[in-house]
Amino acid sequence: MDFDTLFNAQLDTLKKEGNYRIFAELERNCGAFPRARCHDVDTPDEVTVWCSNDYLGMGQHPKVIAAMKTAIDSCGVGAGGTRNISGTNHEHKLLERELADLHGKDDALLFTSGYVSNWAALSTLGSRLPDAVILSDELNHASMIEGIRHSRADKVIWRHNDPEDLDRRLAALPSNATKIVAFESVYSMDGDICPMKEIVEVAEKHGAMTYLDEVHAVGLYGPRGGGISEREGLADRITLIEGTLGKAYGVVGGYVSGSRAMCDFIRSFASGFIFTTALPPAVAAAARTSIAHLKDSQAERLRQRDRVATLRQRLDQLGIPHLHNDSHIIPVMIKDPVKCRQLADILMQDYGIYVQPINYPTVPKGTERLRFTPGPLHSDADIEHLAQALSTLWRRCAISHAVA
Amino acid sequence: MDFDTLFNAQLDTLKKEGNYRIFAELERNCGAFPRARCHDVDTPDEVTVWCSNDYLGMGQHPKVIAAMKTAIDSCGVGAGGTRNISGTNHEHKLLERELADLHGKDDALLFTSGYVSNWAALSTLGSRLPDAVILSDELNHASMIEGIRHSRADKVIWRHNDPEDLDRRLAALPSNATKIVAFESVYSMDGDICPMKEIVEVAEKHGAMTYLDEVHAVGLYGPRGGGISEREGLADRITLIEGTLGKAYGVVGGYVSGSRAMCDFIRSFASGFIFTTALPPAVAAAARTSIAHLKDSQAERLRQRDRVATLRQRLDQLGIPHLHNDSHIIPVMIKDPVKCRQLADILMQDYGIYVQPINYPTVPKGTERLRFTPGPLHSDADIEHLAQALSTLWRRCAISHAVA
Ligand SMILES: Cc1ncc(COP(=O)(O)O)c(C=O)c1O
Ligand SMILES: Cc1ncc(COP(=O)(O)O)c(C=O)c1O
Repeated sequence: MDFDTLFNAQLDTLKKEGNYRIFAELERNCGAFPRARCHDVDTPDEVTVWCSNDYLGMGQHPKVIAAMKTAIDSCGVGAGGTRNISGTNHEHKLLERELADLHGKDDALLFTSGYVSNWAALSTLGSRLPDAVILSDELNHASMIEGIRHSRADKVIWRHNDPEDLDRRLAALPSNATKIVAFESVYSMDGDICPMKEIVEVAEKHGAMTYLDEVHAVGLYGPRGGGISEREGLADRITLIEGTLGKAYGVVGGYVSGSRAMCDFIRSFASGFIFTTALPPAVAAAARTSIAHLKDSQAERLRQRDRVATLRQRLDQLGIPHLHNDSHIIPVMIKDPVKCRQLADILMQDYGIYVQPINYPTVPKGTERLRFTPGPLHSDADIEHLAQALSTLWRRCAISHAVA
Repeated sequence: MDFDTLFNAQLDTLKKEGNYRIFAELERNCGAFPRARCHDVDTPDEVTVWCSNDYLGMGQHPKVIAAMKTAIDSCGVGAGGTRNISGTNHEHKLLERELADLHGKDDALLFTSGYVSNWAALSTLGSRLPDAVILSDELNHASMIEGIRHSRADKVIWRHNDPEDLDRRLAALPSNATKIVAFESVYSMDGDICPMKEIVEVAEKHGAMTYLDEVHAVGLYGPRGGGISEREGLADRITLIEGTLGKAYGVVGGYVSGSRAMCDFIRSFASGFIFTTALPPAVAAAARTSIAHLKDSQAERLRQRDRVATLRQRLDQLGIPHLHNDSHIIPVMIKDPVKCRQLADILMQDYGIYVQPINYPTVPKGTERLRFTPGPLHSDADIEHLAQALSTLWRRCAISHAVA
């Protein structure tokens, strides 16, 4: 009955591999993002966050703050029930309309998170559509993988961002299969963007449904923040667009959007939608305000792009290698979990720079990295401080390599 | 490529069975719970909610409201990342400590919902512990069932609330199995309470781990709101206690609590914990305030019990049958999905009483019901209005039965 021994055995393995995770304990400082207080020992009191997915700082936007507080005053702090049993609030419906409009779709359906939206939607589609086969990009996010696994539908993995491989695999399927092509627009760890037009064309050629995760793109790309599918003018050719309210929009929650029948279907059958307390109306109000703001305002997106370009340029000038991609994500590859954690520790302790080391299972073993996400609120001085710190560490590493 | 036809076919089946769900669109009215504005057509503008799981009205408690707004002012509206990647805020850690203390455990781990905590914890334990077998009460909640299914561990269903059946089934397992007994304290649809001591004793006899869902009990039972396990003095004999922040505590979110090694294990391996944006710090602050309040204050619980007893008594006096149980949940069985919806519609339209009809898949077909949850904020007049309305409808039904 000593279960702790079982638990500790597996934790010890993680520790030995260098994959045991230590979370930084922060206190976000509204009005001073990306600055945060750090509660960990041996760290400066104040740090600059360089790895947040609150990509545009909307989590501290005065309009969003005000909307959330107003909704708390009028509706209280929670929804009071599942969506079916007293938990559907007017604010949820307003947000669902806003999301449908964002993607030019008939309808949208709100979930407690992006994770749950992927898991619940894919498991429902995969398990309930006749002879479903899900064709999944090999680098899809854990939430999609788990949803597909849970559906127990047939699964076919296609080569990352490779429409030709997808084409071949679709062609090999029986004609009666209901084919679902699942992929992402911006892959969050490498920052690469999918060849969406080619994927959509291949899917259409084979009569397949398209399931697109725009979690790292909504709010950031497209003239109204509708994601890569908006930017490329392809949204109306995608069957289902999934997104989050917790990254560029700065709050929490997830959704899918598409036809009225499809949303009604998922609403009616998805266990992960039905059997859980709805998001607080105040969260919905905050998210709606954030989405509406980013439909009109380009300022945050433009400033973010400028910050991303500036950091990239400084890294290039200083000879610090980073993955090239067309997104806002700057991965600096370290390729070793222990070294990755050491570098992050030094950045935190000596420079007040917080960047979480990214290790397995978030990325494959051997591709450990530091992942920087510059936002509109990082100043020139912040960027210079980071670039100089990395440069110093790089030279130190190079020296220790040479000596070793 | 006309996927809507596929979706509509399955929706039509639901409609024919009377199981198609229509959500009431409410606008909660902070300060006036259980009153809410109703946005549906053909309904009174203001209704009284009789089926909320914000059991104690904590969703509008001034201290909870204030805590949430203060945290928004200091930390913003979102966490800004997953728990690993910049999303762990001081408020999360404070809440986890509060939860561990609530159950007298070493540690606790926060999830985005109770659903996700059950799903993620059970799927992680079931898939990672050597030779795991999960013994699941036959009436366990969907979130536990899906977690067990996802784990692909061996599963044994035991008769609802029957320790003897559990004993036999445990005895039949091979000695090398890691046995996990999963059950609930208060079953939300029938309102019955498990024989916890007997179950724990059987589990201990066989060296099995106990996994207890206290979702419908935390905040409501036990001198500090620690649930049935606190009330019965059994918390220290339960391996894992799972709960929600979205029902009696009035906010949103879920958790597990137990040994430090177990929480660390789930933290380190559960996909549904790792790969998702953390709850907003403001949600954590609100939940912590609610928990702390209900650790000290008995007023809400005592008043709720009085309201529950009063409604039960009036129903008995008026001859309206309802399930007898020892909890705060009053199910009135209708046993037909169409009739259940009709009764609910009449209550809403003619009496301004909102109670959602409960149908499949929330309860088995043929056990459709109206489920009333009286709370401390329902007045004598509210109770009398409900009792009289039900009595009128009952007589009308009796007459139509007699004529038919
Ligand atoms: C590609 C992708 N999809 C889905 C999610 C889950 O979204 P959420 O954080 O809202 O649960 C994430 C990250 O968390 C992600 O990176
Ligand atoms: C027994 C039980 N467990 C878990 C849950 C899920 O909790 P949450 O609403 O926080 O997702 C519910 C209801 O929603 C429930 O009734």
